[in-house]
Amino acid sequence: MADSEYREMWEKLDLDLPAHDALLEVLGKFYGDIYMSQQGRLQGMEYLDFVLSEVHGLRIKELQDAKAEGRKIVGTFCVFVPEEITLAADAVHVGLCSGADAGTELAEQLVPRNTCALIKSFIGFKLARLCPFTESCDLIVGETTCDGKKKAYEAFADHAPMYVMEVPQQKRACDRELWKSEVLRYKEAVEKLTGTTITAERLRKAITIVNDRRRALQRLNALRSANPAPISGRDALLINQVSFYDDPLRFTQSINALCDQIEERIAAREGVAPADTPRLLLSGCPMAVPNWKLPYVIESAGAVIVGEESCIGTRNIRDLVDESGETVEDMLDALVDRYLKIDCACFTPNDERMDNVAAMAREYNADGVVQYSLMFCQPYGHEAIKLGKRLDAEQIPSLAIETDYSMEDVEQLKTRVEAFTEMLVR
Amino acid sequence: MADSEYREMWEKLDLDLPAHDALLEVLGKFYGDIYMSQQGRLQGMEYLDFVLSEVHGLRIKELQDAKAEGRKIVGTFCVFVPEEITLAADAVHVGLCSGADAGTELAEQLVPRNTCALIKSFIGFKLARLCPFTESCDLIVGETTCDGKKKAYEAFADHAPMYVMEVPQQKRACDRELWKSEVLRYKEAVEKLTGTTITAERLRKAITIVNDRRRALQRLNALRSANPAPISGRDALLINQVSFYDDPLRFTQSINALCDQIEERIAAREGVAPADTPRLLLSGCPMAVPNWKLPYVIESAGAVIVGEESCIGTRNIRDLVDESGETVEDMLDALVDRYLKIDCACFTPNDERMDNVAAMAREYNADGVVQYSLMFCQPYGHEAIKLGKRLDAEQIPSLAIETDYSMEDVEQLKTRVEAFTEMLVR
Ligand code: SF4
Ligand code: SF4
Ligand code: SF4
Ligand code: SF4
Repeated sequence: MADSEYREMWEKLDLDLPAHDALLEVLGKFYGDIYMSQQGRLQGMEYLDFVLSEVHGLRIKELQDAKAEGRKIVGTFCVFVPEEITLAADAVHVGLCSGADAGTELAEQLVPRNTCALIKSFIGFKLARLCPFTESCDLIVGETTCDGKKKAYEAFADHAPMYVMEVPQQKRACDRELWKSEVLRYKEAVEKLTGTTITAERLRKAITIVNDRRRALQRLNALRSANPAPISGRDALLINQVSFYDDPLRFTQSINALCDQIEERIAAREGVAPADTPRLLLSGCPMAVPNWKLPYVIESAGAVIVGEESCIGTRNIRDLVDESGETVEDMLDALVDRYLKIDCACFTPNDERMDNVAAMAREYNADGVVQYSLMFCQPYGHEAIKLGKRLDAEQIPSLAIETDYSMEDVEQLKTRVEAFTEMLVR
Repeated sequence: MADSEYREMWEKLDLDLPAHDALLEVLGKFYGDIYMSQQGRLQGMEYLDFVLSEVHGLRIKELQDAKAEGRKIVGTFCVFVPEEITLAADAVHVGLCSGADAGTELAEQLVPRNTCALIKSFIGFKLARLCPFTESCDLIVGETTCDGKKKAYEAFADHAPMYVMEVPQQKRACDRELWKSEVLRYKEAVEKLTGTTITAERLRKAITIVNDRRRALQRLNALRSANPAPISGRDALLINQVSFYDDPLRFTQSINALCDQIEERIAAREGVAPADTPRLLLSGCPMAVPNWKLPYVIESAGAVIVGEESCIGTRNIRDLVDESGETVEDMLDALVDRYLKIDCACFTPNDERMDNVAAMAREYNADGVVQYSLMFCQPYGHEAIKLGKRLDAEQIPSLAIETDYSMEDVEQLKTRVEAFTEMLVR
C-alpha cells in the first residue's frame, strides 16, 4: 500500500500528521539502532521487523477494514481483560500500553506529575493525537489494578469511550465472586457493543486461539533455557510486544516457524552470544513498544536476557485456560480461574510472584535478575524491595533499576548494569 | 502520674527512650508555637491541650490498664475499619496515622522512596520505636485503600500483628457483597482476639457510642458556619485528631461542652477572627497528629479555616449508622451501608466527593477551597485535578497544595497561600 493511502487513513483518524511523521521517523531510527544492529539474528525475525515497520500502516489498515465489515475494535491496557471474550464476539482485541514519551505536557494537565511514564504515555498519545490504535477503538477497557490507572481512566473517559473492569485485590472466595461478576458484565458489554451473542462454539474457538498463542510463546520461552542463548532478549521482548496487537493466528504461526529455526540453531550449538555470556532475567513492570532502553543497555553491557518476568512476557502466557468446558458457563468459570492466577503486584499478598521469579531464574539458567520498575509505580516499587530480599535469600544476585522513558539516565544505567554484569562473569 | 512512672511504662513498651524524649520535646515546642500562641481561644480547648500533652502519657497508661484487665487494643490507619465492631467486643480502638517525619531512613529500607509521608511516618515510628500506641496494639488493622498502604502493610506485617481488610474499589452490588464479607470476617477476627461474642446489645451500644461522637462533631461543624468564625481551624483539626485516640465517651462529653461555649460566643457575635476574614475550606488527604503545618500557614496568612473535608474531618463523621436495627444481622447491614458511603478517593468513580466538597463550601460560607495532597499520593493527586475543574465550574476559588511533613517549603507555602487569600479579600 502506498504511503499516500496511509496518510489519508491517518488523516481520517484525525492524527496530528506532522507530529506523527516526526514520531515515525524517530521510532524508525531508534529501531534501526537497537534491532538492525544485532549480529547473528534469526531469519524468522523478518516477520517481526515487517510487522513493526507497518505498525501504524498495514495493521491499522486491517483494523479499518475490519471496521468497514462491521467488526468492533477493543483496546486494553492490561492483561486482565479477557481477550477470549472479545474474540468470541468477533471483535478485534489490541493492547494499547504505550512505551514512549509523547504529549507529556498535555498529559500532565490530566494526571499528576508524579505518575508513571506508562500512564502519561497513553494519555499523552491520545491528547497529542499520535496513536492510530487508540483512534481506531470502539471501546477502551481499563481496570482498577493500580491507583494511577484507576484514577487516570476517570480523566481519560472525557476523551475516549472508556469501560472499566474492577480487579479484586486479594484472591479469596469473595474476590472470585466479584471477579466473576465483572467477567460476566464484560461479556454483556461486548455482546452489546458487537450485537453478537457469545455461544459455546464461538467461545471455545476463541479460547483455543488465545491458548495457541500462549503455547507458541511458552515454546519460545522453553527454548531460551539453552546455552548459548539462541535469541536475544531484545528480540524476545519485541515478540511479546507484537503479540498484543498483531492478528493472533498469523502471530502464532510465525512464532512457531521461528521456534523451528531456534531448534535447529540449538541443535547446532549456535547462539546470539558466547556460552560464557552472563544470562539475566528481567523482572517487573511491563515494557510496552518502543520501550527498549533497558534491554538494549543490558545487552550492550555484555549480558544476554533469557526471560521477561512481566506482563509483556511470562505473566501473560504462563497459564492456559482449561479447554475441557462444554457450556458457556463452564468456559466462563475457566476464564475466571485462569485470570485470577495472574501474579500482578496489585494483589496483596502476592507471594506467588516471589516463587515464580525464583523458579524462572533457575529454569532459564539465569545468573542474575534485573528488576525493573517505572518511577512512581507503587505496586512494583514495593515488590522490588520484597523480591530483592527473597532473591538474596536464595543467593540469586539481583539489581533493582527504577527508570522512566527518558534517555537521560542511559549512561548511568550502563555503568550500573556493567558493574552488576562483571560481578556475574561465568 | 509522675514522669518516672511514664518512663518505666515507655521502657516496658521497648521505646527508644532518648529518641522519644527528643520527639516529645520537639512536639511540645511545636504545639506551643502553633496552638498556645492563639488569641481568643475557647476555654473548652483546655481539655484538648491536656489530652495532647498527655498523649504519650495518661492515654497510654489507660491503654496499659485496659490491657491489664484483659482488654485488647486495636490500631487502625483508616476510617474504613468499623470501630463499632471493635468496641462491641470490648476492645479499645485507636487511630495510628502518623503526621511527623521520624525514622524516615529506616522506613525507606522497607518502602520505596516515592511513598507518601503518612506511610513513611507510621513505618518510621515503628522501626525507630517511637510510638507507644503502636507498641500497645494487640492487632493492627490495615486496608487495601491505596497502593502505597496496601503494599506497605505486607512489609509492616514482619514487624507488627497485621490484619488487612479489603475495601472494594467501586460501589455496585458485587462490591457491597465483598465488603459485607469483609465486615463479617473482621467481626470474627475481633471476637477471636478478644474472646468476646458480639451480641445485639453490645453492638447496639457501640453504634450509639460512635454515632454520639459523630453527632457531637456534626454539631461543632454546623456551628462553624457562623461569621465571625467561632473557633480556629487549627483547634477544630486538633479536635478531629484527638477523636481518633481519646476515649469516645469522654471525648463526646467534652466536645458537647465546648459546643455550648461556642453557642454563647456566636450569640455574642464574637469570634477568633474579624468578620471580614477570608474563610477557607481545607480539602484532601488526612492530616494526622502533629501535621499542623498547612493550617498554621493558612491562619497566619490572615485567613480562617471553617471546615476540613478529609478523613480527619467531615469524611469520618458525615454519615451515621442507622440505629433502627434489632438483630446483629440488621446492625451489620447498617454498618456495611454506612461505611460504603465514605467518599474516599480510592473509589472510582468518586463523583459524590466532588458534590460533597462543593456543598460544604456553600454550607460553611467558605470563600475558597485549599486542596491538600501529600506528595506521591496518587488517589488525592488525581482528584485534585478533577476537583479543581469542578470548583472552577462552580466559581469557587481554589488552590492546590502538594506537600509533605518537612518544614522546608513553609516559606513557599506562605507566599502561595497569601497570594490566594489576598485574591479573596471579602
Ligand atoms: S502489571 Fe498488573 S496492571 Fe500492569 S498490565 Fe500486568 S496485570 Fe495489568
Ligand atoms: S507501571 Fe505501575 S503505576 Fe504504571 S500503570 Fe503499571 S502498575 Fe500502574
Ligand atoms: S483518605 Fe481514604 S484511605 Fe485515607 S483514611 Fe480516609 S478513607 Fe482511609
Ligand atoms: S495520603 Fe494517599 S498515598 Fe498516603 S496513605 Fe493516604 S491515600 Fe495512601
